[in-house]
Amino acid sequence: MTMDNPIMTRAELEVRRGAKWAYHGADYLPSWVADMDFRAPAAVTEALTRLVAESDFGYAIRGGTLLGPAMGRAFAARMQDRFGWEVDPERVLACTDLVQGVFDTVQAFSAPGDKVVVQGPTYDPFREGIEDSGRVMVVDHMRYDDRTWSIDLDALRAALAESPLLLFCHPHNPTGRAFTRAELEAIGQIAIEQDAVIASDEIWADFMLDAEQHVPFASISPEIAERTVTMYSAGKSFGLAGLRCAVLHFGSAALQERFHATFPPRMLGGANIMGVEATTVAWESGNAWFEQVLDAVRSNRASMEAFLAEHAEQLEAAYPTSTYLYWVDCSRLGLEESPSDFFKREAQVVFTSGAEFGADYAQYVRVNLATSPEIFDQILAQAGKALDNRGAGRG
Amino acid sequence: MTMDNPIMTRAELEVRRGAKWAYHGADYLPSWVADMDFRAPAAVTEALTRLVAESDFGYAIRGGTLLGPAMGRAFAARMQDRFGWEVDPERVLACTDLVQGVFDTVQAFSAPGDKVVVQGPTYDPFREGIEDSGRVMVVDHMRYDDRTWSIDLDALRAALAESPLLLFCHPHNPTGRAFTRAELEAIGQIAIEQDAVIASDEIWADFMLDAEQHVPFASISPEIAERTVTMYSAGKSFGLAGLRCAVLHFGSAALQERFHATFPPRMLGGANIMGVEATTVAWESGNAWFEQVLDAVRSNRASMEAFLAEHAEQLEAAYPTSTYLYWVDCSRLGLEESPSDFFKREAQVVFTSGAEFGADYAQYVRVNLATSPEIFDQILAQAGKALDNRGAGRG
Repeated sequence: MTMDNPIMTRAELEVRRGAKWAYHGADYLPSWVADMDFRAPAAVTEALTRLVAESDFGYAIRGGTLLGPAMGRAFAARMQDRFGWEVDPERVLACTDLVQGVFDTVQAFSAPGDKVVVQGPTYDPFREGIEDSGRVMVVDHMRYDDRTWSIDLDALRAALAESPLLLFCHPHNPTGRAFTRAELEAIGQIAIEQDAVIASDEIWADFMLDAEQHVPFASISPEIAERTVTMYSAGKSFGLAGLRCAVLHFGSAALQERFHATFPPRMLGGANIMGVEATTVAWESGNAWFEQVLDAVRSNRASMEAFLAEHAEQLEAAYPTSTYLYWVDCSRLGLEESPSDFFKREAQVVFTSGAEFGADYAQYVRVNLATSPEIFDQILAQAGKALDNRGAGRG
Repeated sequence: MTMDNPIMTRAELEVRRGAKWAYHGADYLPSWVADMDFRAPAAVTEALTRLVAESDFGYAIRGGTLLGPAMGRAFAARMQDRFGWEVDPERVLACTDLVQGVFDTVQAFSAPGDKVVVQGPTYDPFREGIEDSGRVMVVDHMRYDDRTWSIDLDALRAALAESPLLLFCHPHNPTGRAFTRAELEAIGQIAIEQDAVIASDEIWADFMLDAEQHVPFASISPEIAERTVTMYSAGKSFGLAGLRCAVLHFGSAALQERFHATFPPRMLGGANIMGVEATTVAWESGNAWFEQVLDAVRSNRASMEAFLAEHAEQLEAAYPTSTYLYWVDCSRLGLEESPSDFFKREAQVVFTSGAEFGADYAQYVRVNLATSPEIFDQILAQAGKALDNRGAGRG
C-alpha cells in the first residue's frame, strides 16, 4: 500500500473542479463549504482505481449481498470499532447523504403543519428539510458563555412539548460543540417525556480534537435508542461527500417500520458502488490517515487561537472541541454588511456567512480549518491584514 | 484518447466482483441480470481516473452549478442529439436509478389503494414499486402473434378507466418491443381520455437494433407530454448501473409541481460526482463506442435466431427490435421446474427466470445478448447441448 500524505499544495488544489476551490475562482482562498483540502487515503484511491481498471460499474454486490446490506455491516463494524457501540446491521438503511436523511426523517416522523425543533445556529438544510415539506421550524437557540455553546434545556422542553421531532446535530455544526453524556441524557430524557423522535446528525462524530470521546446519542440507553435515528457518513471525515454515500440507523424495529411506512426502502434510491467501496475501505483502514488529518486540524486550531487572541477586540469565538469549524462572532467589527462579504472583498478569503445558519447570526462567519497549515496561515494572514486595515480606518 | 475496444474476455470478466459474474460463481456462464460484459468507453475511464487522481471527491459543481442542474443540461443535450427531442433542462430531476423513479412516481401520482396499470410481462421492480406502497397492480398482458408482442388497447382502456397511472416500459423489457409512433399515439390518447399520468421507463431507448428510431413517448404531442414522466439513464447503455445516476423528466411544469408536492427535490438524494461525470462523458462522446456494442448485440441476435431455428420444436421467442434481450417461451419443453433452473443445472448457464415477470410467465426465460460473440456462442452451445439431451431423453 502506498504511504499516505493527506497534505495537498495550493497548486494541486487549484486544479480541483469541486465546489470549494472552483466556485469562487482562483483569486480567493476558500474557507467556506465544509469540505477538506486533503488527498484521499491511498487505500481509497487504490480501491477506486481497481474498480475503474476492471470496468466493473454494473449492478454490484459485496460480501454476497446487495450494497444496502453491505453498508449496514460496514456501519455496524465502524460503530463498534470507533465508539464501542453495538448496532444491528439490519436496522441500517443506506441513503445518498445526510440532507436526504433529514428530509426523509422530517417527512416520516412529522405531519404537515407540525413544529420541528432544531438548535440555533442551524445548519441550513435542516431548515429546508422542515420548511420545504410544509413543517414549521422552531429554533432552540444555544447559549454562549465562557467560549462554550450549550443547549437551553428549559426552552428545549417547552419546544418539544409541541413537536414530534428534534433534529439534532452532534457534534454541532457550526459551533464545534460535542455534547457530553450528561447533556445527552438530559436531552434524551426530555424527548422521552415529550414522546419526541430524535434525528441525530452525527456526521462530525470522528472529529474529536481532544481527549473527550464521541458518545452516539442512541448508545446512551435503550429508551433513547428506540426513538433515535442516527445519521452518519464517511463523507465528512474522509472528504468523500461528492460520492454520496450515507446511512440512517434506526434504534428500534418499531421506529424503522414507521419510517418504511412512509418510505419503502428503494424509494430513497440505490447505493452506488464507488461510494460504498470508498466508504468501506475508509472505515476499515483509514484511521491512521485520519489521525494525520486531525493533527493538521489541531495545528490550525492553535493558529486560529493565536489569531483570535491577536484580534480579541474585534472577534469572539468558542473553542471547538470537535469538527474542523470555528464559529466567529464579528459583530464588534460594526460592519454594515455581512462579515463574509467583508472578508471576501478585503482579504480575498471566503468564509461561510453566518446568515446561512439563521438571521440572528448574520454577523458571524464559519471558518474551515480543514486545509494544510501552510494554506491556513495564508488565510489568517490575509484576514488579519483586512482586520488591521479596518481597525486603522475606524480609529 | 485511447482507442475503444468494448469486448472483454472471459478471464477479464471473471475477476469482476459485480453481480452478473460474481453472484452465481465461476462454474456458470451468466446471461441473467440486465448488465453488459463490455469495457466502459475509454473517455469514461479517463474521466473517472482523472477524478481519482485529483482526489476530488468533495461537494461537486459542473458548469457553474450543482450536479442536479448539470444533469438536466446533459439530458437535454442527449435527447436533442439522439432523438431530436427538445426538452427544458429545468424540468429534469436527477435521481439514483429508475427503480427509485418508479417508486417515487407511484407515490406522487397515485394514492394508497389505487390501481396502477402495467404491461405484462412486467419488470419486477414495477410490481414492487406499486405493492410496497400499498397500491394495486393491474396487468395489461401483451399479446403475442407472429413473433411480435403488442399492447392490448381495449384492455388498457378498461384498466386506465379505474387507474390514475400507467407505468410503461418503452422499449419493453423483457420482450424487446420498441413501440411505434402510431401505437404510442393510441396509448397516449387513452391516457388523455382517462386522465392518467404516464410514467415512461425509456432506459432501453438507445438500443434500437434496426432502422427504426426510438420515439420518446413525451415527444409525440404537448397533450401527451403534459401528463408524462420520462425516466432515462446511461446505466443500461454504457454499463454504468452501479454508479447510480438517472433522471426524471416532467413533461409540464404542473406535473413537476405535483411531483414536488410529494417529494421536495432533496428528498430523493444528491447526484454523485462519479455517476454524473461518467454519464455526461458517455452521452457526449460515447456514440462510436455504443455502435460497437450494438454490433455485438446484433451479431448475438443473429446467433440466437439460428439457435431458435435449430430448436424450433422446443423454443419460441419474439424477434427483438430493441434491447439486448430475448424473451423465450420454453413451455414446449414440458418442464416440471422453471426453465431457468433447468438451464442452470443442465447447461451451467444462468438465464433470468420468467417468473420474475409474473406468474403467467414461469415457463419463460430472459436471455441477455450483451456479451462478446465468443462468450455468447459458448452460452448457446451449452444450452443447446442441454436441449438436445432433453429432447433425446423424452424421445
